[in-house]
Amino acid sequence: MKIAGKHWRSIWPIGERAVGIVDQTRLPTQFVTAKLSTCDAMVDAIRTMRVRGAPLIGVAGAYGLALAMRVDASDAHLARAYTALLESRPTAVNLRWALDRMRAALARASIDARFDVGWREAARMADEDVATNRALGAFGARLLASAQATLSRPLNVLTHCNAGWIATVDYGTALAAIYHAFDAGVALHVWVDETRPRNQGHLTAWELAAHGVPHTLIVDNAGGHLIQRGRVDLVLVGADRVTRTGDVCNKIGTYLKALAAFDNGVPFYAAAPASTIDWAVADGRREIEIEERDGAEVRGAVVDPSTQVANPAFDVTPARLVTGIITERGIAAPGELPALFEKAA
Amino acid sequence: MKIAGKHWRSIWPIGERAVGIVDQTRLPTQFVTAKLSTCDAMVDAIRTMRVRGAPLIGVAGAYGLALAMRVDASDAHLARAYTALLESRPTAVNLRWALDRMRAALARASIDARFDVGWREAARMADEDVATNRALGAFGARLLASAQATLSRPLNVLTHCNAGWIATVDYGTALAAIYHAFDAGVALHVWVDETRPRNQGHLTAWELAAHGVPHTLIVDNAGGHLIQRGRVDLVLVGADRVTRTGDVCNKIGTYLKALAAFDNGVPFYAAAPASTIDWAVADGRREIEIEERDGAEVRGAVVDPSTQVANPAFDVTPARLVTGIITERGIAAPGELPALFEKAA
Repeated sequence: MKIAGKHWRSIWPIGERAVGIVDQTRLPTQFVTAKLSTCDAMVDAIRTMRVRGAPLIGVAGAYGLALAMRVDASDAHLARAYTALLESRPTAVNLRWALDRMRAALARASIDARFDVGWREAARMADEDVATNRALGAFGARLLASAQATLSRPLNVLTHCNAGWIATVDYGTALAAIYHAFDAGVALHVWVDETRPRNQGHLTAWELAAHGVPHTLIVDNAGGHLIQRGRVDLVLVGADRVTRTGDVCNKIGTYLKALAAFDNGVPFYAAAPASTIDWAVADGRREIEIEERDGAEVRGAVVDPSTQVANPAFDVTPARLVTGIITERGIAAPGELPALFEKAA
Repeated sequence: MKIAGKHWRSIWPIGERAVGIVDQTRLPTQFVTAKLSTCDAMVDAIRTMRVRGAPLIGVAGAYGLALAMRVDASDAHLARAYTALLESRPTAVNLRWALDRMRAALARASIDARFDVGWREAARMADEDVATNRALGAFGARLLASAQATLSRPLNVLTHCNAGWIATVDYGTALAAIYHAFDAGVALHVWVDETRPRNQGHLTAWELAAHGVPHTLIVDNAGGHLIQRGRVDLVLVGADRVTRTGDVCNKIGTYLKALAAFDNGVPFYAAAPASTIDWAVADGRREIEIEERDGAEVRGAVVDPSTQVANPAFDVTPARLVTGIITERGIAAPGELPALFEKAA
């Protein structure tokens, strides 16, 4: 992604002692980077959402574990760092996937070699994320192009939260498809859900504005009405976890948009790389832990102290409402995910 | 409604020259009243939502027309004032209902008598609104009591926007049922949708806090998840217009909650007095004009100038998703509204 003419990734190594990130709590008003030198700093950055987005927090977790190895590469410290990172956010499965892969690589290495092995493995995972998102974006763009080809006007895509460049190492997931299609000349317009309480829709609007993609910001309440009135042709979101059966766990409010799409015969797609698929889970509604975040995100300044607040951060869209999952291997109906990845269903 | 021990209505005559209102744009942080002396001031108060809520803007419109008659009671001025008030907000049918009733009463009176006739008629409509909401609240409370009686815990009701005291002259519509049930000892808890972009959920939380009803504020995105997880027993909202077929036009986002309720077998009720029913409309989706409000309500300070915004203020929940309409005559399934009011279907 280019910001003011310069190409950026959302995370990058700084020498061999630190990692650079874009501080997402400052966006879109300010583009500020931060340098993280310790595993604890990374845990904090993930928990406070200075880095966020399922694919990005996977890579961030990998770098966090590598930084932990620079200080103390013992098995005990590895186990402690793994747990601290894993518990920084519970819902996105990419974090566990990345930490498991790192831990396996580190466990095979001698104590002396662990930092080098971890640092290289984290960098490899960052590069793989970029390649994965390119491939996923190309499949998604083909879908958008064929949907637009049936129309004599731009394709209207509704998205929720931010599944863009800044939610991954580069390109994005749902937005990778949009960028790829837009660059190939497909006429499209994006409805951007504000995505309370954290307003990640503002990140999406900021990304789309930087890329020149026509878009309109709406409150989360508006999407059902727009879908009902025929003003949305396709709903396209990212995911924090997809079950092997095709249930899509994503930012709170996604389920409501999937219901509206289904009620009006509008296709609903989730873009998710393999690292977002949790092959161990069959029933997303029963088996996925939904993060409950700080009520201060909802409360604001104006709420009476006797008012309670609740702040679940994700919801689960059942596979029956999902048209397809866009992956780096291609697009699968929910039930066909195992076949696409040659896993036993 | 009592505020700090004193009983208030949301609108009241000040002598015979002005009308008092609670400025709802200052709530819940500040309880500020305002004095409106002209029809133009009333048009402005309705348009800017200093007074809001379908039943309240009906009575506010009536007082606005009476104030217009004090200045100039000619037929031409009556017609101009009628149009200006009617166009102040397009969606809630109560405004047209109240203005039509006022115009008919004024047209029958001599020019000299028009202010007195109008002033008395507006006061009568305010009193009738209070009586209507008491009756509607009693029917709604009976429904909540029987729903709670099947449980061994408090009944969880989800509401959207503000259909409370402050949306009517007194008592409220959806919240009238809740207040009535709570006062009768029914154990209940209310999930309060924040209701972006205007945050009327903060008004609801403020009202419920003042009345002592247990409640929890949530973002608009959260309701689907809570309904899916069995944490909502009943959805109860107000309405800005109900068609004779039982389509419910209400604050943007209501349709999404109705879909989630339906998907999970949770009953969905709208509370609406007769003045909210538009007997002339059969298909809410095709026939009701949805107000598009200023994009500044959505945009905030942080959005790039190249980002467009859209701000539809209402949506239509089709009758097939509606369990019942709670009125001052009783509770009807959507298709049974004409029979309840003895109107030809």
